[in-house]
Amino acid sequence: MSGRDLSLPAGGFDALYGLELLEVTDELVRAQVAVRDEVKQPFGLVHGGVLTSVAEALASLGTAVVVMPAGMAAMGLSNNTSFIRPISEGTIHARAVRRHRGRTSWIWDVEITDDAGRLCALARMTIAVRPRAAG
Amino acid sequence: MSGRDLSLPAGGFDALYGLELLEVTDELVRAQVAVRDEVKQPFGLVHGGVLTSVAEALASLGTAVVVMPAGMAAMGLSNNTSFIRPISEGTIHARAVRRHRGRTSWIWDVEITDDAGRLCALARMTIAVRPRAAG
Amino acid sequence: MSGRDLSLPAGGFDALYGLELLEVTDELVRAQVAVRDEVKQPFGLVHGGVLTSVAEALASLGTAVVVMPAGMAAMGLSNNTSFIRPISEGTIHARAVRRHRGRTSWIWDVEITDDAGRLCALARMTIAVRPRAAG
Amino acid sequence: MSGRDLSLPAGGFDALYGLELLEVTDELVRAQVAVRDEVKQPFGLVHGGVLTSVAEALASLGTAVVVMPAGMAAMGLSNNTSFIRPISEGTIHARAVRRHRGRTSWIWDVEITDDAGRLCALARMTIAVRPRAAG
Repeated sequence: MSGRDLSLPAGGFDALYGLELLEVTDELVRAQVAVRDEVKQPFGLVHGGVLTSVAEALASLGTAVVVMPAGMAAMGLSNNTSFIRPISEGTIHARAVRRHRGRTSWIWDVEITDDAGRLCALARMTIAVRPRAAG
Repeated sequence: MSGRDLSLPAGGFDALYGLELLEVTDELVRAQVAVRDEVKQPFGLVHGGVLTSVAEALASLGTAVVVMPAGMAAMGLSNNTSFIRPISEGTIHARAVRRHRGRTSWIWDVEITDDAGRLCALARMTIAVRPRAAG
Repeated sequence: MSGRDLSLPAGGFDALYGLELLEVTDELVRAQVAVRDEVKQPFGLVHGGVLTSVAEALASLGTAVVVMPAGMAAMGLSNNTSFIRPISEGTIHARAVRRHRGRTSWIWDVEITDDAGRLCALARMTIAVRPRAAG
Repeated sequence: MSGRDLSLPAGGFDALYGLELLEVTDELVRAQVAVRDEVKQPFGLVHGGVLTSVAEALASLGTAVVVMPAGMAAMGLSNNTSFIRPISEGTIHARAVRRHRGRTSWIWDVEITDDAGRLCALARMTIAVRPRAAG
C-alpha cells in the first residue's frame, strides 16, 4: 500500500463503474472492479469500455501523483487497448506499470487479468503532462 | 434513421453511462452522451474512458447488425483512441464509419466531437467476428 | 501537385526502400513505392515495415512543411498501423490526410491501397511538434 | 542463442535495412541494426520506419517459428509503436517478448534501446495466425 488516500471522489465516472483503488504510486497503480450486470455489454460479457476506462484511470492517477503537486495536469493522449480474453464474472484485476517518464508525456502498460490470473487485456497509455492553465 | 429499434438493453454498461443511439447500420453508427458529473474524471473533464467506451459500443453494434443474424459474435479486438480536445459540458457526439469488412474482422473509425463540432477524439476499432460458440 | 521540390535526399532510408513523393502539402501527402523483392518479407509479400515506414514518412513530411520554416521540428510520436490485405506486386499507393493540427502535435490518417484500389493498410500517425533545440 | 539458423534470406527488406538476428524463439526474439546514413530520415535521426520494421520482423519471426511447421502462416495484423527517444548513432537494439499466444493471434511487446540502454521505442504487435492457403 502506498499510504495515500485511495478513496475516489464521489459522483464521478470511476465511482459510477465501480473502480476500487488498491495502490497508487508514480510507478505502479493497482485497482479492481467487481463484475456485475452494469459493467456488461448486451451479451453478458464485461464491456470493453470498462477495461479501457480502468486503464485510462490508472495511468492518469499514477501520473497525477507526481505532476499535480508540481502544478501540472495529467491528461490522456492515447489509449491503445488489445482485448485477449472476455471476462464474465468475478473481479477485474488491473495493474499499471510505468514504462516511460518524460518531460511532456508518460507511458504506462496496463494488464487486466481475471480471477484465475489469465491475461484478458493489455493497454498502452500515453499521458500528456501539461501546464495546468493550458488545459 | 435506420428503422431499427435503437433502445439499449436496460441495466448494462452503455445504459449506465448514458449512451443514446441515433442511427445503427452496418456502415454508419451515430450516438450521443449527455455530459454530467458522472461521466467526468476528478478534474471536471469528461473521462477518457467514456470516449473509448462509446467507440467500443458503436463499432460493436454496427458489426453485430450483420454478423449476429448470421450466427456469429462481434467482439472488440483492439481499441486505439487518440484524445485531441477535452470536453467539459454539453453533449458528446459520436459517429462511427466502417472502413473494412473482412471475414474475421471489421475496422471502424469513430469521431468524437463537441457541441461546436470540434474534433475531440479519434478511435480506430478492430472488431473480431467469430463463431458464436467459440466465445 | 504542390509545386514543391518532391525529390528526397539521396542516401537516406526513404530513398533506400524507394519512396516516390507525388504531392506534399500540410493537409495531404501522396506517394508510392514500386513493389520489388527488396521490399518483401521472406514469404513473398510486401513487408509490413515498408507500409509503416511510408506512413511515418508522409505524416512527418506533411507536418514539416509548416513547422520547419517556423523553426520547429516534426518527430513521430506514435505509429498505429492496421494491416488489412497483403500486397505482393505492382505499386504501393499511399495517401496521408491530416486530421488534427495542434500546437504540440498533429494527427494524420494514412491509407495504403494496391493497384486495384483495394484498402491494404490504415495508419494513424501522431507527429510531435517541438522546438528544434529540444530534439 | 537458440541454435536456429539466424541468417536472413538475402534480397529481402530485412536484409536491405540491415537486420541482424541474435536469438529467435517463440517467446523471445532479439536483434540489432547498425545505425548508418541509409536508415536515417532527412534530419539525421534513425527513421521511425526502421524501428517499426524491426518490431514487425521480430514478432513475425517469433510467431513463424511455431506456426509454420504446423502449416500455418504468420502475418502482421497491427503494429502500434510509440517513439520515446531518438537514436542517431551506434546500434539499435531490439527485444521482442511474447505476451499472448492464442489460436488465431499472438501478441508481442518489442522494446528498442540504444547503446546506453535507454528506452527509445515500445511496440505492441498483433500477429495473425492463419491457414497457409487463406493468405
